[in-house]
Amino acid sequence: MAKQPVKARILNGFQDVLPAEAMRKEQMLSILKKVFFSFGYAPIETPHLEYSEVLLPDEGDEVSKQLYRFNDHGDRDVVLRYDLTVPFARYVVQHKNDLGIPFKRFAIGNVFRGERPQFGRYREFTQCDIDIVGTSSLSADAEIVEVIVASMQALGIERFTVKLNNRKILSGIAELVGAPERAAEIIRIIDKIDKIGQEKVKASLIDEVGLSAESADKILEFITIARDTPEAELFGAVESYKTQNALIDQGLTELQELVAIVRSLGISEEFCKVDFSLARGLGYYTGAVFETVLGDLPEIGSVCGGGRYDNLTMSYSKEQLPGIGCSVGLSRLLAALEKLGLQSESATPADILVAQMEGVPVVATRGLASSIRAEGVCVEVYPEEAKLKKQFQYADRRGHKFVIVLGSDEIENGTVTAKNLKTGEQNSYKSATEFVAATGMKGKN
Amino acid sequence: MAKQPVKARILNGFQDVLPAEAMRKEQMLSILKKVFFSFGYAPIETPHLEYSEVLLPDEGDEVSKQLYRFNDHGDRDVVLRYDLTVPFARYVVQHKNDLGIPFKRFAIGNVFRGERPQFGRYREFTQCDIDIVGTSSLSADAEIVEVIVASMQALGIERFTVKLNNRKILSGIAELVGAPERAAEIIRIIDKIDKIGQEKVKASLIDEVGLSAESADKILEFITIARDTPEAELFGAVESYKTQNALIDQGLTELQELVAIVRSLGISEEFCKVDFSLARGLGYYTGAVFETVLGDLPEIGSVCGGGRYDNLTMSYSKEQLPGIGCSVGLSRLLAALEKLGLQSESATPADILVAQMEGVPVVATRGLASSIRAEGVCVEVYPEEAKLKKQFQYADRRGHKFVIVLGSDEIENGTVTAKNLKTGEQNSYKSATEFVAATGMKGKN
Repeated sequence: MAKQPVKARILNGFQDVLPAEAMRKEQMLSILKKVFFSFGYAPIETPHLEYSEVLLPDEGDEVSKQLYRFNDHGDRDVVLRYDLTVPFARYVVQHKNDLGIPFKRFAIGNVFRGERPQFGRYREFTQCDIDIVGTSSLSADAEIVEVIVASMQALGIERFTVKLNNRKILSGIAELVGAPERAAEIIRIIDKIDKIGQEKVKASLIDEVGLSAESADKILEFITIARDTPEAELFGAVESYKTQNALIDQGLTELQELVAIVRSLGISEEFCKVDFSLARGLGYYTGAVFETVLGDLPEIGSVCGGGRYDNLTMSYSKEQLPGIGCSVGLSRLLAALEKLGLQSESATPADILVAQMEGVPVVATRGLASSIRAEGVCVEVYPEEAKLKKQFQYADRRGHKFVIVLGSDEIENGTVTAKNLKTGEQNSYKSATEFVAATGMKGKN
Repeated sequence: MAKQPVKARILNGFQDVLPAEAMRKEQMLSILKKVFFSFGYAPIETPHLEYSEVLLPDEGDEVSKQLYRFNDHGDRDVVLRYDLTVPFARYVVQHKNDLGIPFKRFAIGNVFRGERPQFGRYREFTQCDIDIVGTSSLSADAEIVEVIVASMQALGIERFTVKLNNRKILSGIAELVGAPERAAEIIRIIDKIDKIGQEKVKASLIDEVGLSAESADKILEFITIARDTPEAELFGAVESYKTQNALIDQGLTELQELVAIVRSLGISEEFCKVDFSLARGLGYYTGAVFETVLGDLPEIGSVCGGGRYDNLTMSYSKEQLPGIGCSVGLSRLLAALEKLGLQSESATPADILVAQMEGVPVVATRGLASSIRAEGVCVEVYPEEAKLKKQFQYADRRGHKFVIVLGSDEIENGTVTAKNLKTGEQNSYKSATEFVAATGMKGKN
């Protein structure tokens, strides 16, 4: 300890979470977990570190360059996980007999990607996933939509829309115009239609994808119908496409059934609607895909998305285990909740600080705090004697709502004096119980 | 995906947490967090990965051989954190002005040590720490004891003892016999007195530490008084030692004051008592030290321990920030709760499974589940149509308490049939609300 101090710093692209933000994250995750529990999702955990061979079945992939991969002290080739989905596929195959199929889980954990750091993007960040594997039932797809809707509502978000599509429709359209391998590109261009207009979409489909003018028109016709038709008539309007391509037929049928279930569950078009231009970036989706946008913050993008995958476990097993999953974009969602004013700005879980006055026995202040805590209220005791001004600054900085001052007068009179830091109002109470009752905080913990 | 599957496996010494255990861990952490919140501890987070130079100020340390240390893709010398204490010291120094001092926090996170794997010990494991820094007040020491007592009680543990000591006393005793550098060794030997007896302790002090017979007798005299005297007379009985050594004087005075505060807070000797043989392994403690043992499971060792440190931040700053911290041994505590039967064995958070009968519309089963969920009860819907036997097996395996069967009869009659899986009893109810009321589960979520 006598040596020269080392500079306290962290790696570029990593973050220390300060109390106020950690509180907000904790509060958000606690609400999400309650929703997951209410639908019967159990938590699981997998290691942060795994064999590279296991997590990276496809060597030379683009993602490989961004990984924290090294040889450990036993010279094993290991890597820090870069998502929660690949380890989950490995986990399900490895423990299938213990878990039983179908299997539902949620997982919340940190993942690592050595990408170039950007504002709001970190090299270590928290993911939150739910999945149902071992069934291809549309009932499972509908449940994921239910969970998303329940989650948004539980978080207090009033205006949001889960956008639904089916990958089979998109692949079918690409097949229809003779370009099945270019589906992803075609979708990316379609996705821009609101920004650049129909003419430029057509030009891009011709110039960038190399489609004929006729093919480009065919695609535009489909998406124009899809975009401009009210939902009640939508599936009727695109019905004729079903006979043109088997994949479109299957995709439209699945989507129509899913929408029917979702509607029957009382989820209206306001909260969940079809969007044929919705694509999702990841390659492994094979059926339903969905994203969630916020009515008041469309610029923030999707806060929650996912889809159905049929082949995810096939890196580890010849047996196919179809599944559907959803990933919550925690940092976006947290930013959204902050912008919408739906979370506390406080850096402390305690609404009350009991000041420690000079000469007042610790038992008096701590005893008072205990009696408030017994009412189910979070309360902190300033941990040493200090000037009252310093203790009020401490409370101001952290966001306590009340400071209780217990001096010799209060002890003598058996009263409790509390100052409301927001209003500046100061009142005297006969007991901690009376104070708690007066503030309406009882049982909030 | 067409390539040969890779074997699904994890690294030796790492673990996949299955749902039942993850549920128990989640439940335990949720209780602990509530206690920490109730005392005003806010969460913080630090990265899993840091500069080696920052986390390992003392090169060549024994712990260095067990680390996951490597050069990242930017050739930075980095290491996975091996505890939450060293990063906390770094964090406090780095963010001192934003945090404000004194500062209280809890942190729950995984740490990595490449030790030889043993039964119940893993190379990646979860730690849970609370700390108060920036004060050397005994009020802070008392708070840590309060938090431990509240945590054990919140977890449902009835018989436990927080053992208290002060490092200054132990160092003073070593000074008293002219062997200040051998304090740790002396304590380790004293610690065995119950097992090996006084004679062998004396012999070890002479043979192993190289003390004279006279010095060994002096030590034995002290610990004999300390061990055999009831608390009411204890500090009186060792009073004469205070004049012999300044450190003993200071240590005994601090300990006596701390015990007085703890007692005045209503924590009796049953739950917290002095133990002069308590040492704690770590070198950085400078004052109060404590460990927690369980009355019904003494063999499990300490489930929660810590102490006061004055120099922890001095690796990063010339400014001294005294603090006190406590680390919960989560895996031990989890094992203890399981042995004491204080946790559910269930692998699902949902008490109820709604079966999906063939031909019954998804909206009927999911609608029923929604109405139960609205009563504050966790409920799962089997995600596809399947034979009833398979669905009952699913519920049996996971630990659901009830299976609700909603067939065409029930739909026609507007009733709900529920089977209690424990008793085998099957009953019909007029509505989901009636069923929930009858089971007493309302609002348990």
